[in-house]
Amino acid sequence: MSPFDTSQNISNPAPQAPFEGRHIGPNAHDASIMLSAIGVSSMHQLLGEVIPPHIRRQDTMAIPAALSEAEVLAEMTALAKQNSVKTSLIGMGYYGCHMPPVIQRNVLENPAWYTAYTPYQPEISQGRLEAILNFQTMVTDLTGMDIANASLLDEATAAAEAMAMAFRAHRGKGNVFRVDPDTHPQTLGVLRTRAAPLGITLEIATPDTGIEAACFAALISYPGSTGAVRDITGEIEAIHAVGGMAIVASDLLALCLLEAPGAMGADIVLGSTQRFGVQFGFGGPHAAFFATKTAHQRSIPGRLVGVSQDHKGRQAYRLALQTREQHIRREKATSNICTAQVLLAVIAGFYAVWHGPEGLRRIAKHAHNMANQFVAAMRRAGRIVRHDAFFDTVVIEASDDRDAMLAAALGAGFNLRSLDRAFAVSFDETTTSDDMERLLDALGGAGITKEARADEARADDGLTLPQQLRRKTGFLRQSVFHKYRSETEMMRYMRSLADRDLALDRCMIPLGSCTMKLNAAAEMMPVTWPEFARIHPYAPKDQTRGYLEMITQLEGLLAATTGYAAVSLQPNAGSQGEFAGLLAIARYHAARGDSHRKICLIPSSAHGTNPASAAMAGMQVVVVKCDAHGNVDMADLQAKIDQHQANLAAIMVTYPSTHGVFEESITELCDLVHQAGGQVYVDGANLNALVGHCAPPEFGADVSHLNLHKTFCIPHGGGGPGVGPIGVAAHLAPYLPGSPIDGDGAVSAAPFGSASILPITYAYIRMMGADGLSNATSMAILSANYIAARLGTAFPVLYTGSKGRVAHECIIDIRGIQEKSGISNEDIAKRLIDYGFHAPTMSFPVAGTLMIEPTESESLVEIDRFCDAMLSIAAEIDAVISGQWPTDDNPLVNAPHTSDDILDDAWAHPYSRKQAADPNGNAQANKYWAPVGRVDNAYGDRNLICSCPALSEWEDAAE
Amino acid sequence: MSPFDTSQNISNPAPQAPFEGRHIGPNAHDASIMLSAIGVSSMHQLLGEVIPPHIRRQDTMAIPAALSEAEVLAEMTALAKQNSVKTSLIGMGYYGCHMPPVIQRNVLENPAWYTAYTPYQPEISQGRLEAILNFQTMVTDLTGMDIANASLLDEATAAAEAMAMAFRAHRGKGNVFRVDPDTHPQTLGVLRTRAAPLGITLEIATPDTGIEAACFAALISYPGSTGAVRDITGEIEAIHAVGGMAIVASDLLALCLLEAPGAMGADIVLGSTQRFGVQFGFGGPHAAFFATKTAHQRSIPGRLVGVSQDHKGRQAYRLALQTREQHIRREKATSNICTAQVLLAVIAGFYAVWHGPEGLRRIAKHAHNMANQFVAAMRRAGRIVRHDAFFDTVVIEASDDRDAMLAAALGAGFNLRSLDRAFAVSFDETTTSDDMERLLDALGGAGITKEARADEARADDGLTLPQQLRRKTGFLRQSVFHKYRSETEMMRYMRSLADRDLALDRCMIPLGSCTMKLNAAAEMMPVTWPEFARIHPYAPKDQTRGYLEMITQLEGLLAATTGYAAVSLQPNAGSQGEFAGLLAIARYHAARGDSHRKICLIPSSAHGTNPASAAMAGMQVVVVKCDAHGNVDMADLQAKIDQHQANLAAIMVTYPSTHGVFEESITELCDLVHQAGGQVYVDGANLNALVGHCAPPEFGADVSHLNLHKTFCIPHGGGGPGVGPIGVAAHLAPYLPGSPIDGDGAVSAAPFGSASILPITYAYIRMMGADGLSNATSMAILSANYIAARLGTAFPVLYTGSKGRVAHECIIDIRGIQEKSGISNEDIAKRLIDYGFHAPTMSFPVAGTLMIEPTESESLVEIDRFCDAMLSIAAEIDAVISGQWPTDDNPLVNAPHTSDDILDDAWAHPYSRKQAADPNGNAQANKYWAPVGRVDNAYGDRNLICSCPALSEWEDAAE
Repeated sequence: MSPFDTSQNISNPAPQAPFEGRHIGPNAHDASIMLSAIGVSSMHQLLGEVIPPHIRRQDTMAIPAALSEAEVLAEMTALAKQNSVKTSLIGMGYYGCHMPPVIQRNVLENPAWYTAYTPYQPEISQGRLEAILNFQTMVTDLTGMDIANASLLDEATAAAEAMAMAFRAHRGKGNVFRVDPDTHPQTLGVLRTRAAPLGITLEIATPDTGIEAACFAALISYPGSTGAVRDITGEIEAIHAVGGMAIVASDLLALCLLEAPGAMGADIVLGSTQRFGVQFGFGGPHAAFFATKTAHQRSIPGRLVGVSQDHKGRQAYRLALQTREQHIRREKATSNICTAQVLLAVIAGFYAVWHGPEGLRRIAKHAHNMANQFVAAMRRAGRIVRHDAFFDTVVIEASDDRDAMLAAALGAGFNLRSLDRAFAVSFDETTTSDDMERLLDALGGAGITKEARADEARADDGLTLPQQLRRKTGFLRQSVFHKYRSETEMMRYMRSLADRDLALDRCMIPLGSCTMKLNAAAEMMPVTWPEFARIHPYAPKDQTRGYLEMITQLEGLLAATTGYAAVSLQPNAGSQGEFAGLLAIARYHAARGDSHRKICLIPSSAHGTNPASAAMAGMQVVVVKCDAHGNVDMADLQAKIDQHQANLAAIMVTYPSTHGVFEESITELCDLVHQAGGQVYVDGANLNALVGHCAPPEFGADVSHLNLHKTFCIPHGGGGPGVGPIGVAAHLAPYLPGSPIDGDGAVSAAPFGSASILPITYAYIRMMGADGLSNATSMAILSANYIAARLGTAFPVLYTGSKGRVAHECIIDIRGIQEKSGISNEDIAKRLIDYGFHAPTMSFPVAGTLMIEPTESESLVEIDRFCDAMLSIAAEIDAVISGQWPTDDNPLVNAPHTSDDILDDAWAHPYSRKQAADPNGNAQANKYWAPVGRVDNAYGDRNLICSCPALSEWEDAAE
Repeated sequence: MSPFDTSQNISNPAPQAPFEGRHIGPNAHDASIMLSAIGVSSMHQLLGEVIPPHIRRQDTMAIPAALSEAEVLAEMTALAKQNSVKTSLIGMGYYGCHMPPVIQRNVLENPAWYTAYTPYQPEISQGRLEAILNFQTMVTDLTGMDIANASLLDEATAAAEAMAMAFRAHRGKGNVFRVDPDTHPQTLGVLRTRAAPLGITLEIATPDTGIEAACFAALISYPGSTGAVRDITGEIEAIHAVGGMAIVASDLLALCLLEAPGAMGADIVLGSTQRFGVQFGFGGPHAAFFATKTAHQRSIPGRLVGVSQDHKGRQAYRLALQTREQHIRREKATSNICTAQVLLAVIAGFYAVWHGPEGLRRIAKHAHNMANQFVAAMRRAGRIVRHDAFFDTVVIEASDDRDAMLAAALGAGFNLRSLDRAFAVSFDETTTSDDMERLLDALGGAGITKEARADEARADDGLTLPQQLRRKTGFLRQSVFHKYRSETEMMRYMRSLADRDLALDRCMIPLGSCTMKLNAAAEMMPVTWPEFARIHPYAPKDQTRGYLEMITQLEGLLAATTGYAAVSLQPNAGSQGEFAGLLAIARYHAARGDSHRKICLIPSSAHGTNPASAAMAGMQVVVVKCDAHGNVDMADLQAKIDQHQANLAAIMVTYPSTHGVFEESITELCDLVHQAGGQVYVDGANLNALVGHCAPPEFGADVSHLNLHKTFCIPHGGGGPGVGPIGVAAHLAPYLPGSPIDGDGAVSAAPFGSASILPITYAYIRMMGADGLSNATSMAILSANYIAARLGTAFPVLYTGSKGRVAHECIIDIRGIQEKSGISNEDIAKRLIDYGFHAPTMSFPVAGTLMIEPTESESLVEIDRFCDAMLSIAAEIDAVISGQWPTDDNPLVNAPHTSDDILDDAWAHPYSRKQAADPNGNAQANKYWAPVGRVDNAYGDRNLICSCPALSEWEDAAE
């Protein structure tokens, strides 16, 4: 009866139930019900009808036997102990900080926050939208700019996005991008990778050298990577004088004391918010920030939260300019960014809420004061300090004894930054007087008393910054940054925000394409352990053995699951993985003297990021048509190959397709491309339908990126963090991303991207084992087909394979229904909120549809609850069609219903309050009430407000 | 302007805001508003009006300078590293287990669970009531008994409660309590302490010795402490034959395989549920269980959750027989138990929900199988195994080499239990095959292959238990134990329960007497660190250095805050502290030849536990009257002293009084008692009004217990864990509780009671420092007086001191209002739920009143929100008085209003839905909806159901 055996693995004597059964929602009994409902006799039969037999992998994945939760935690503990936590004063954009415990416990370790999806459905996302708006407000205020986005992946990619944005804005002007030599080396590394395919020339030039006319923008570091703080007004004027844009890489903590770049004329300001409460984590994930002027608001990469109103005029947040994001510029794009680091941005925003402006200034002054004390002592010891003006980072000349000094510091427990005949030391929130004593003892700077040091540092209000660079403007005057100083209030504020949202801890989030599966607690726990959290990405290798071991193992496990020969974990989002994969192809062709191969074929059904990534990799996109079944039109493909054969670089296809179907022609497609000399990029977005059953390289793929959140349990975090590793066949392995500071082709600021969350995927794979992973795929496919079967009677299912089956998701077509009833897919999506559900994916990949993907983690009970809701909605639509309810006043078009609506004594709708708010009779038990009604996106886009509005400001806009 | 200086401590250079300002809600600006509202110019003036000047302490508490959150976490880390985590196979009622990560993250580390109060208000407690009902159901099912309580403090006190209950039931029969010699030694220790004052003789006798007629009950261990499993039917029959009760100490995991004691005739079954997912924690807190027959349901000690219905007949949970509990039998009591280990019971219940009966059986079989493997190997090695029938614990004879064997095991990383010429080894859920290999290697038992061992152990379905002792009955057939096998479902179930409740993470819980303050995340974090969690209470001392250091430090800190000479942390609840304190007095008198001093004076206003504790300590209670102001009637006191002078043992007074007043006569009172040769016990329930301002010994106290949850931040956990240390003057120090296994006067099973949560109090005191603690007290007093001032216009404040001030809480008198309006204090309490608040304390210490205590942690915003709600309610009462609303149909008597009520189209009340459910207009933002309406307690008590009801069962009762 059982579709697969969940009995205990003999080699695993743990008495707990196998984790597989904890991760996968339906049990064997449920599965038999589901199989029977769709009319097949076994999982084997179903898979035979879904997956083309010629692409089924024959081997078992080489993954060790499954571990129990306790066993994997023991293994993670052993790995953690191989890391050595020293005090890292390395700087380079990564600084020690304290994550406030109230935030760690109630946000980072709370599924209400980390399991939330991207807030595309604003009505069920008001909490995290407010939290992101706090972040944006913090960034605009501290940088002195007009508008900031909801975060980017890291400082280096933010710099690359700024370069690309300026390049777009000044297309035709020239192709020189000027870079401050005192830029973080990893930023330089990523800029190099990103500039080349776009034909941009990087010019690394000191401020005093003249600017040529072909220069479309300049990146200025303020403070510099090695700590120097200088007046950059002149440099900004100089780049403006040649018609270019001034881009400033900065540090928000420094900006608590330093004049805001905005006040100095900057066009774009970017940097990292890591030190606002997010630990090193061996390099990530952290939220980068990106701020610009109003004039550029529609060109800003990434997401943007804005203020709008709901249908009753109540203030409501939502993603602003969302259509801009969802329809990425495709072939014309030079950015593929479609994600953010929301969870980390939320934490950074809460850090500012918690400390407030006075607290941030105090923390900034502490770091500065420590630097001042250090300088005083080192000067007293006869040392030459390179820069007179600095914030928290100091360079000590050491032409003779650098290595001895670094070794001495290390002996005392400190990592410093090694420079050419010098070393740098960065101080931060966590530096204590004890640290200072020990460090100075080690470096021979103990010849000055603590008191004398402190006296020197205290002079002039503790600041050694030049007067003209000191910040004159206040910041964070909005009430949210002043209301929550007590922990009780802060805890309640964060809970009240979380309670406004629907996340995976309350209900299914049946999103096609971007689905959400369980993020198990055992997977999440190691993330906040100090041995993983407190490791600087550029710490000495012998301090990071546990990380390196885990990463090596994980690369192997991902290779085993995908069938690829090699894997890189560096890309910190799927978009970056796409870019890295295409770049590997480009570099492969170039190495073979085929630099002219620049054509990238992309089917019309592809994700919008595909063509954008191809453009970023310097390729020209040629679109291949799809046929009426949603499959690649093989005739058109042949035609396009014939046309571009000599210059064919690659094809990018998603498999199973974005239509949720296993196209049977995939092998033939790959063969055709290979025969023409091209490479095959299989977008791994739907890898969760393949693991254990198909290996992309076996049917012809050369490279894929994997979205770890969807297939391998990285939590969505409300829209990030992401991890987007790539797998490649052996011939592409030499072209995987190299080190950001001394390698080629780096795509992220840190060598291993979002390293601190890799334990999640590692633990997941180790607990599932080969059979568990394979069974998860089977169950995801069964659940999707079960939903298709249950809903198919009321909603047409749009695409199926040759046997009438969908893959791991199904598209239901609302267009015909809308024609008859006036009820749109959006009405259904919003009505689902009244039933206590997050909406499926709307209008992707086909306008007017809903795409539903249940994942293997959802139980049959929850899937049935969802199907019941959908069928109940279908009956409501019938009532509209039959004329029982008018098309403009029915529970669908008025959805979601708020408690305010219900409490109003003047209820004038043709349906009851009960029908409105509790159609499935669950009010007594944990009914979810949307905090706002249907949000007006267009209104908000017309009246764009992207930071915490003063009440009057919003009222003005509302008039 | 500032009432106290919150500026940064010079000796503490941490750049973060001092923790004091995080813990205390109102800031200096708020305080000035509050001071001005009550008409005083400074905190100094207010304290002068509240605290009698002659009892003000003059010194500053000797507490080190305050640490920041990061500093205290660093200090806790250093302490943790001094503990050494070995694998403890010691047994003695404490066994290794895995806390499921999903439960750890979402319950133990989630403020929605740990900050909840005791569920006296059932309408806002349905979630935790259901969780406790799960626990009770698990206990009744596994023990085979009719009814189980909501947990007790530990197995040893549960045994003592059983003894006392049997003694009550059989008063006059005799005074011999027979005890199985194979009882856990700490249980024996606590029984000895508890038996003596009651005049009970413990008779430790093997099963084969005859039972005398004076024997009122027997305690049988099944399995025995050293592991033997025997058929106890005969012993039960034998005690029954002499008319006594059969009490069985057992182990729920063993009962998954062993026949239930209930099926063998037991009258009471008790034990620990620690191994159901709660770590060792150096001894506690863990939940003990206590089950009995229906006949004894009204005598069962502790709390009981039952099923009832709300006013509309909807099923609703509540504390059953609550009046029984709230009015503890006072003078006649032989139990002072008024608390439970709710948080731990909830975890144990969820552990059973998560694993289900099949999972529990698998875990039980694993432990048994490991024991079987061990026995096979040791026998093969020529060792003699003491017992043939065992569950998880095995005794190996070692007359010659015990110490060598123990040392060898320790060398391999294992703690075993040392016995007389033998040693015992207990296996558990966590024991792995690797452990077995290493242990056998160390003990010379490696001469048998893994396979052979496994084969032997696999024979006969893996069981070596005698056939007649194998469990024949099923268990946990209720659906709740079968529905939540996937982590997604389990996480959502726990969240849905938490969401039904109001805890401190959502609103103020303004309970007089039992108030709730902030439990800061930094205080909570160390509790789940493995170095604190995984230490057996009887592990070798050199493995527990960190604990012992922290405990010694904490005893010193508590001595400094109270002014006492010595402190014991052993009592694991306030009630146990009371008993321990009175016992110290009794032992002191006895040591001086004053054993006849048995009179304990107790004012009529005392907590019910006071006389109960006195009775338990063998004292006779004499009640002293109170005057019209609620103060001790000094004339009556003098009269009672005169009457009882020769036999006066002690007086027990609460200070400030339970009426919330600093009685000025306290010094005189203490003098009078001392002059008569008595000792002064000051109940520390209200110590939070004294810390930093008064030291009880300075005004005459000899001993106090402290409720750490109220004064020192132990979370309430929905009704436990508790910690009730006592402080004593120097002359009583020799009489503090000794070790449970080799000392005198032990009151808890573990030497340091609830050791694993002591980091909370330690961290709190270290982060607050002397000034912070003192300021917290001041602010608690200011807040209470501010509330009295704001509410006084609408509700008469019942007791004040001579200057018209209250202390740290205030009582408002509803009796006059009820006379005029028919609205009771209960109506107000329930109406507050509609406003989003937990009710104040009802009818304690005076019937018909509400007692309100805000604590220092509540912000002015929240206090004002509460006062606004109360004043709005006062206006509603006026509308009833004026006849606008009938007395039997108004928002007060109908409160709380559920969403079901509101959604009903047939709304026939004379007030609007909005008035009903959203009187203060907060519906749009996180309105709390009570899941049930007003609960009918009497109905539930008449139809007592205390385990998960089958639907039919409940419907039958409802007919």
